[in-house]
Amino acid sequence: MDYQKLAREVLEANLDLPRMNLVVFTWGNVSACDREQDLLVIKPSGVPYDQLKQEDLVVLSLSDGRILAGKLNPSSDTPTHLYLYQQFPQLGGIVHTHSRWATSWAQSCRDLPAYGTTHADTFYGPVPATRKLSQAEIADAYELNTGKVIAETLRERRLDPLAVPAVLVSGHGPFTWGKTAAEAVHTAVVLEECCMMALHTELINPQVQPIEDYLLDKHYQRKHGKSAYYGQKT
Amino acid sequence: MDYQKLAREVLEANLDLPRMNLVVFTWGNVSACDREQDLLVIKPSGVPYDQLKQEDLVVLSLSDGRILAGKLNPSSDTPTHLYLYQQFPQLGGIVHTHSRWATSWAQSCRDLPAYGTTHADTFYGPVPATRKLSQAEIADAYELNTGKVIAETLRERRLDPLAVPAVLVSGHGPFTWGKTAAEAVHTAVVLEECCMMALHTELINPQVQPIEDYLLDKHYQRKHGKSAYYGQKT
Amino acid sequence: MDYQKLAREVLEANLDLPRMNLVVFTWGNVSACDREQDLLVIKPSGVPYDQLKQEDLVVLSLSDGRILAGKLNPSSDTPTHLYLYQQFPQLGGIVHTHSRWATSWAQSCRDLPAYGTTHADTFYGPVPATRKLSQAEIADAYELNTGKVIAETLRERRLDPLAVPAVLVSGHGPFTWGKTAAEAVHTAVVLEECCMMALHTELINPQVQPIEDYLLDKHYQRKHGKSAYYGQKT
Amino acid sequence: MDYQKLAREVLEANLDLPRMNLVVFTWGNVSACDREQDLLVIKPSGVPYDQLKQEDLVVLSLSDGRILAGKLNPSSDTPTHLYLYQQFPQLGGIVHTHSRWATSWAQSCRDLPAYGTTHADTFYGPVPATRKLSQAEIADAYELNTGKVIAETLRERRLDPLAVPAVLVSGHGPFTWGKTAAEAVHTAVVLEECCMMALHTELINPQVQPIEDYLLDKHYQRKHGKSAYYGQKT
Repeated sequence: MDYQKLAREVLEANLDLPRMNLVVFTWGNVSACDREQDLLVIKPSGVPYDQLKQEDLVVLSLSDGRILAGKLNPSSDTPTHLYLYQQFPQLGGIVHTHSRWATSWAQSCRDLPAYGTTHADTFYGPVPATRKLSQAEIADAYELNTGKVIAETLRERRLDPLAVPAVLVSGHGPFTWGKTAAEAVHTAVVLEECCMMALHTELINPQVQPIEDYLLDKHYQRKHGKSAYYGQKT
Repeated sequence: MDYQKLAREVLEANLDLPRMNLVVFTWGNVSACDREQDLLVIKPSGVPYDQLKQEDLVVLSLSDGRILAGKLNPSSDTPTHLYLYQQFPQLGGIVHTHSRWATSWAQSCRDLPAYGTTHADTFYGPVPATRKLSQAEIADAYELNTGKVIAETLRERRLDPLAVPAVLVSGHGPFTWGKTAAEAVHTAVVLEECCMMALHTELINPQVQPIEDYLLDKHYQRKHGKSAYYGQKT
Repeated sequence: MDYQKLAREVLEANLDLPRMNLVVFTWGNVSACDREQDLLVIKPSGVPYDQLKQEDLVVLSLSDGRILAGKLNPSSDTPTHLYLYQQFPQLGGIVHTHSRWATSWAQSCRDLPAYGTTHADTFYGPVPATRKLSQAEIADAYELNTGKVIAETLRERRLDPLAVPAVLVSGHGPFTWGKTAAEAVHTAVVLEECCMMALHTELINPQVQPIEDYLLDKHYQRKHGKSAYYGQKT
Repeated sequence: MDYQKLAREVLEANLDLPRMNLVVFTWGNVSACDREQDLLVIKPSGVPYDQLKQEDLVVLSLSDGRILAGKLNPSSDTPTHLYLYQQFPQLGGIVHTHSRWATSWAQSCRDLPAYGTTHADTFYGPVPATRKLSQAEIADAYELNTGKVIAETLRERRLDPLAVPAVLVSGHGPFTWGKTAAEAVHTAVVLEECCMMALHTELINPQVQPIEDYLLDKHYQRKHGKSAYYGQKT
């Protein structure tokens, strides 16, 4: 079991959350997984970011959730992360925050419309809001059921999780993901910017419509498609 | 009379207000009490935070408000603090600020609804706005009457002050509290975030409803209830 | 003619504008006057704050506006400052900025209502918006006429300029003043906070009313009245 | 071919974007041109600002777009820049960002009205929003067509590009320009401030009207006209 590199990535990604002004106090968590070794590394529960050290991170089995290393309790949202990794083999990193603008959208229980190319550069369509969890789903296995409602939302909308790498959990807040923890943090920043601008776009023009599919398509594909021409060849 | 440790805590808590962007100039004050020794330590009136030193703090008798130590006048809001400590034996620290978002809600004379889990993690229900003070209550013993209307609000709503550790004084601003001064500052930050997000939640979706009681209950209890499982065992 | 002390105060007050986030680039100016020596010291026109030095300040005759010292052109708003000092002998310092929230109110051509005690602690009533200048007033002696419309506004509303130490010039931005340049800057910060909060108060509760006169009176008097008890005796 | 001085200016102007809080990540680009030498220098595509070095910049022929120096791909928006320089011989520098407030206006597909003198000091009239691009214009030569729709907007409105040195590309974001790259960045900051304040002006007073033409004229001319008297003679 060799998780030091993964743990370093998870530590850096967690520390990026306060650097990017996405969290106050302990509100947020980043995880990453190593599917070959069946490992998940995640932030411990309730530890302030300015005190977080690599040895505080918790290592679990990705398939059954057993704790394999670490002295602290893992994030209380760990069952949500585990379920999403198990359901979507494309995911390598997941972020949850209570960032101000994305949480305002999540609390409003509305999808985030694609109002511009900033959105289209990262999200291939609106960012969906989940349905609300039922009383029974909240009473028992709440965090697992949060994962289930995210997965249900992606499936019902027939979304590729890497093409729309975020969900707004209604009444709660955003989850974002990617192939790595760093990608998931990057997406969390983009989501925050898009949420801030979408509200103000609607305030400036209450009749505004989402951008046309062909503009959405153009911007998403020029960055992520087969013939992508944004950025540098690597 | 040994109040050095308490004074250090009060100094640190006061200095946290500008660090957390809750105050400009001298707008705000933190106090803490030691019930065994019958002491209250509070910020002096009108002293800028960047000049505040531990010896500037004022020590008073918790039961009768006499000044026991300190050369400066205590905060003009001292009678409000004293009354709240006297009425609610659970309180160990109190914060008052004119922070931007919480003061906007206080000025609007509306309760802060619980629109999400960020709110539910700290406040077990809406944060109440007080009624307005009458002309007579303002003319005479204004600061004491501010304490009385806060206590009246908590009693009429049958609120446990540690379960809903904040009030919005209508036309004025927020008061928060906790078992310690540090807890009260923490709550003041949470309140500011929740106030910011609640307004924007309503702007995004004017038909939004508060979260269901069972979600409120779940989040509050997982952090503060008997079977709390958030954070680390201490 | 000894203006070094006054110039130091004017320099510091000007440098406070970017420190308090009230200006970008060169948008703003502070002046102060010495009535005994018949002197006005003011920022030069169009000089960025991070390059501003004491010797760049311009010294003028308060009574006739002649330049007495300084190699640079004075602020283009100098005639506005001069007129206000000449009309209101109480004034010792004046600030003009294009700060974001106060300018938004000035552009909206509405008075700033007194929605809370933060406002009442500094402004003894609403902060008035001027009428718009006529085409003739703008075409000729525009900056002087800006001073005249400010004075007209104060007189028509029968305002004591030290009790309501600010005006919103419609379609333009805020002017604030005080007994010193430092006081005028302090008021500019308070105005910015009050403008930010007043808009959000209205968004939270579109039916909100200004605070009652007796609460306005109480807060203003406890800080500025004969029996003021806020702060420390000096 | 001597482009070191121009490249230094382009590097500095690009680094100003994050300093002025106009960009996150790689969202934005600045170019400048040297018409005598037929050169364009522009930011490479997708390179983070904190890693950007002068040798990363890409040098192209202004007349035909061939790459003359640089190992990296130029900004994907290069065809937009090239077209604008070719069409408007007054331009020496161009900036594109996704800055929050200007992008919110661009997404709303509305012109930015001139609500105050802050606007009039830089923009001699409303900042126009383009029409939306058609499906065909997006499918093929999208970035070139973005330049064409900007030019079309300026021509249809009979605007002098140095008198109104910005456009809001509907559903996308702002472009600004000037005689140099530094001027274009300056205008991008002004646009961001004006966009922030225009929205809030409308929220404070939904019936607000743009400032009168004679006030617009006065402020624009006192800074940019033949008899300009703002600032220092140089």
